[in-house]
Amino acid sequence: MKFEEKTLKSEYVYNGKVLDIKRDEVLISNGHKSVREVVEHSGGVVILAVQNDEVLTVEQFRYPLKKTSIELPAGKLEKNENPDDAAKRELQEETGYIANKWDSLGYIYTTPGFCDEKLYLYLAQDLEFVKEKPDEDEILQAKKTPIKDIYNMIHSGMINDSKTICTIFRAGKYLND
Amino acid sequence: MKFEEKTLKSEYVYNGKVLDIKRDEVLISNGHKSVREVVEHSGGVVILAVQNDEVLTVEQFRYPLKKTSIELPAGKLEKNENPDDAAKRELQEETGYIANKWDSLGYIYTTPGFCDEKLYLYLAQDLEFVKEKPDEDEILQAKKTPIKDIYNMIHSGMINDSKTICTIFRAGKYLND
Repeated sequence: MKFEEKTLKSEYVYNGKVLDIKRDEVLISNGHKSVREVVEHSGGVVILAVQNDEVLTVEQFRYPLKKTSIELPAGKLEKNENPDDAAKRELQEETGYIANKWDSLGYIYTTPGFCDEKLYLYLAQDLEFVKEKPDEDEILQAKKTPIKDIYNMIHSGMINDSKTICTIFRAGKYLND
Repeated sequence: MKFEEKTLKSEYVYNGKVLDIKRDEVLISNGHKSVREVVEHSGGVVILAVQNDEVLTVEQFRYPLKKTSIELPAGKLEKNENPDDAAKRELQEETGYIANKWDSLGYIYTTPGFCDEKLYLYLAQDLEFVKEKPDEDEILQAKKTPIKDIYNMIHSGMINDSKTICTIFRAGKYLND
C-alpha cells in the first residue's frame, strides 16, 4: 500500500493520567526512516443539546490555554465505556439535563498528525432538566445560547474550540429543519 | 477570577521532536487540587486553497490512526516562523501551488483540554501551479475536489479531520459568494 508507514521500533516514553506517549521509529514507503511521536488518548464525546433554537454551552478554564473557553458539553470516555452512555453521562454532569432523543453526528479526529483522540459527536433533543453532577476537578458555567449566536461566535472568533465547530457543522441539516 | 487554576508545581516529563509534555499540579478555585497534563506543540497553519469551485485536498497516512486521511494542506510552524509565511510555505510544499490572494479565517484550538496547539486558518485564492517541494518524511497525494463534494464528504464521514471541517466552516461566507 502506497501510503503505509511500518513500525520498526515502539517505546512508551510517558504513561500518565489522561494520556500516554509513544515514540516510534517508522519506515516510510519512500524508503526513508523517521520518528513518530504519538499521544494516546481514550477518546471522548461531544453533545449538541438543542431546545427551542437554543444550544447548551459550557464555559470553563482550559489550563493549557491559560484562559476560559466556550464549548459544547464534552468529556472523556471512561474505561470500557460505550460512547452513547458517555454522552448521556457527560450531558447531565455538565449541564443537569437529560435528553429523550439522541442522534449520532459521526466522529472526528482532533489532531491526527500526532494524536489518536477520536471524539464521537451527538445531537440531543427533547431535553429535561434534572440535576447537575459536576466533577470535583472541573468548574463549569453552563448556559443556553441561541443557535444564531453560536454561528456568529464561530465566525467572529469568540468560539475557537475545534470539537464545538465540527459538531455544529455536522448538525447543520438538523438545525436548518 | 472565578475560573482560574493556579499552578502549584510544574515539571517536564518528556521533551520530544514535535511535542513536549508537562505534568502540573494545580489549585482549582473550588479549593480542590488536581493534576493537569499538557502537551506543548508549536502550532501550525491550515490552508483552504480554492479555484473555480474546487478545493486542494491532500491524502496522507496518519500514523496515530494507522490509516490515510483526507485533509486540507496544513503543517507545523517552524521555530520563530510567522503563520502567514508558514501558510505560503506549506501550500507550495504540499500541493505545488502558490496563491496571490490570502485571507485570514482566524484560528482554532484542536483539543484544548490537554494541548495548547493553535492552528491559524487561511483562505488562499488566485492560484498558480509552480512546483511541489515535498518533505522527505511525508508522502502526500494532492488533488482538486469540488467544494460541494467536500461538504458531502464531511457530512457522510469521509472527512473526519477537525482542522479541515473547521476551516471549511469559517470559509462559508466566502464560498457562498
